[in-house]
Amino acid sequence: MHAVRTDPDPARRSDASRRAILSTAFDLVGEAGYAGLSIEGIAARAGVGKQTVYRWWPSKGAVLFDAFLMLSEDSGGSPALPDTGDLEADLVAVLRATVDELNDPRYDEPMRALNTEIAHDPDLARAYTERLERPMRELKKDRLRSAQRAGELSADLDPDVAVDLIWGPLLNRWMLRGGELTGDYAERVVVAALDGLRPRGGAAD
Amino acid sequence: MHAVRTDPDPARRSDASRRAILSTAFDLVGEAGYAGLSIEGIAARAGVGKQTVYRWWPSKGAVLFDAFLMLSEDSGGSPALPDTGDLEADLVAVLRATVDELNDPRYDEPMRALNTEIAHDPDLARAYTERLERPMRELKKDRLRSAQRAGELSADLDPDVAVDLIWGPLLNRWMLRGGELTGDYAERVVVAALDGLRPRGGAAD
Repeated sequence: MHAVRTDPDPARRSDASRRAILSTAFDLVGEAGYAGLSIEGIAARAGVGKQTVYRWWPSKGAVLFDAFLMLSEDSGGSPALPDTGDLEADLVAVLRATVDELNDPRYDEPMRALNTEIAHDPDLARAYTERLERPMRELKKDRLRSAQRAGELSADLDPDVAVDLIWGPLLNRWMLRGGELTGDYAERVVVAALDGLRPRGGAAD
Repeated sequence: MHAVRTDPDPARRSDASRRAILSTAFDLVGEAGYAGLSIEGIAARAGVGKQTVYRWWPSKGAVLFDAFLMLSEDSGGSPALPDTGDLEADLVAVLRATVDELNDPRYDEPMRALNTEIAHDPDLARAYTERLERPMRELKKDRLRSAQRAGELSADLDPDVAVDLIWGPLLNRWMLRGGELTGDYAERVVVAALDGLRPRGGAAD
């Protein structure tokens, strides 16, 4: 309770300030958009001095990135993908949940902000890839490898291309607002990625 | 020849100013990045008053969008996709050319800027979809329909999902800097999209 002000342990007090700053940044970007986010605004709302924020982060993009890291760590990191033995059903469930998250205003604006920072900042993109994207990608690839072992996916598949094929269309449509983002769309993408665009079976090759 | 200053026809003079502003905006964003682009900077370099720019465009995002429109119109609009009768070869050629364009510093930064503006501005996204994305998408779908008629693609294909499956992974990897963008990657995506991730043929189905 009021740990920022009263905790006698400086390390714990500093950690509490850090967490207060990060969740404030996340909330503010959801309310005011990324253009309306500023180090001054974060400091004022979190009840710390501007210099405290600058001591830990060089830019508002860096604050937001750490806010996402904290969110991910607080939830125990990304969970493994479901593995019921039915890859198509599992992927549809995962992508439908992603659609719900991307359509949730609390997440849409912060994620959009992080993604556009990444698009313009190669250093942030590297940090994002190493600390958030790659761990999630490994979990996706684990699920695909399990499906490969079960004979549900081609043995000679490139798992990175497979991940891009399943998740890329959805993320691209969301980011560029190229069309409605629905669970049904996610399902059609999964089916198309698994079956491919060429005719299957029969005499038609 | 100094058309901006000496052409006696006001409509043509105004068109020349407009074109000068648009190509200046495109050049400036390539040199200084989108963050470094300003209406003032565009006006100074194009040799017009700031109010001239504001009279035609409400924001630097709107200028950049019109610069892309001009570029597209000057090249006679987007060309139809090649149709040699071999869909896979045609798509690989098109996507390899896209990779070259996305890796070209003259285009990378302006396109990145336009795409991040779209990500944050629903009105601009709508204009982009209607005037640039949809016409290009129709050309892609024309090529896919031709392949459907030739039996190269499934008859019950959703052409919009197919376009997203072929182009989405590449654009997403470029935008989020998720990995190296090479012609070989583009080719692997095309093959995976056409064949699908499940095993084909044989008893394994």
